[in-house]
Amino acid sequence: MEPSLISEVIRCANFAAVKHKDQRRKDQEETPYINHPIGVAYILTEEAGVTDLHVIQGALLHDTVEDTDTSFQEIEQEFGPEVAGIVREVTDDKDLPKHARKAAQIEHAPHSSKKAKLVKLADKLYNLRDLNRQGPVGWSAERVTEYFEWSAKVVNGLRGTSKPLEDKLDELFRERNIST
Amino acid sequence: MEPSLISEVIRCANFAAVKHKDQRRKDQEETPYINHPIGVAYILTEEAGVTDLHVIQGALLHDTVEDTDTSFQEIEQEFGPEVAGIVREVTDDKDLPKHARKAAQIEHAPHSSKKAKLVKLADKLYNLRDLNRQGPVGWSAERVTEYFEWSAKVVNGLRGTSKPLEDKLDELFRERNIST
Ligand SMILES: [Mn+2]
Ligand SMILES: [Mn+2]
Repeated sequence: MEPSLISEVIRCANFAAVKHKDQRRKDQEETPYINHPIGVAYILTEEAGVTDLHVIQGALLHDTVEDTDTSFQEIEQEFGPEVAGIVREVTDDKDLPKHARKAAQIEHAPHSSKKAKLVKLADKLYNLRDLNRQGPVGWSAERVTEYFEWSAKVVNGLRGTSKPLEDKLDELFRERNIST
Repeated sequence: MEPSLISEVIRCANFAAVKHKDQRRKDQEETPYINHPIGVAYILTEEAGVTDLHVIQGALLHDTVEDTDTSFQEIEQEFGPEVAGIVREVTDDKDLPKHARKAAQIEHAPHSSKKAKLVKLADKLYNLRDLNRQGPVGWSAERVTEYFEWSAKVVNGLRGTSKPLEDKLDELFRERNIST
């Protein structure tokens, strides 16, 4: 029997929740990290109208390799080559120093697949809304501003992918007088 | 446009994750509470072969009213009367003292709907496996045994609902020489 769409989404959400179980967001409340990938998937279904299973699975898994012990091979085995490909495209190379990683995101954005671009846009939108809600513990206002400015440069390389997400991101940049 | 099954599952998972964000499991690692409802939904899709959207939404939401500020009205408004009905059936009456609540679960189990019975079976299976993995902080071996014995009585009122789940629960009871 073909696994149902529901079971594929739940299997993926469970995989991500188990992998991220010891990780917390950087906010004061130490929100469980898993709320972020679930929220990114929710932005895609609710605000971008995405119905593609692999994009949603990519969103749920997008930080598992970067932030937990998960390997690309494991993702491929569990969720197939397309999902693994999306996760690979949105995963920073942790061998690079932080500054180079941020430069690489700007550089790689325009060469990403459409599906990876959707995940990246939703990831940025979630993170910037989160920064507006409450800065991470220990971040100065200047660091927050720099994060917005860097995000605008990444987003510029992702345009032409989802008008609703790009419009909402542009509104956040406009509020901070960041030119795009 | 009809919302897709994927978007309905993600919307529900996001609602539950936000509601449970400040809550942790009772284990040493303080696992995010949301891992539990997601794991209960996963037991249903993976081990009981459930493909019914409302049962899976009921599983994702099953502890929101009992443990967070969520109301039944809110669940009904967001997810409709059938899902709200399932959540109502699996929610303990917090006005009762703990002992009476545990007795009420045994008493109400056989009168539950099939959909609520599925959620209850998966909830019990998740919790008993969790107890076998690691007792909650501060629980004596005797308290764990009592929890297994009480669970067996609840499960006895849920039989005839899902053979795979009941078989797996029976195996856990057998390992502890609990007669059912
Ligand atoms: Mn992310
Ligand atoms: Mn529960």
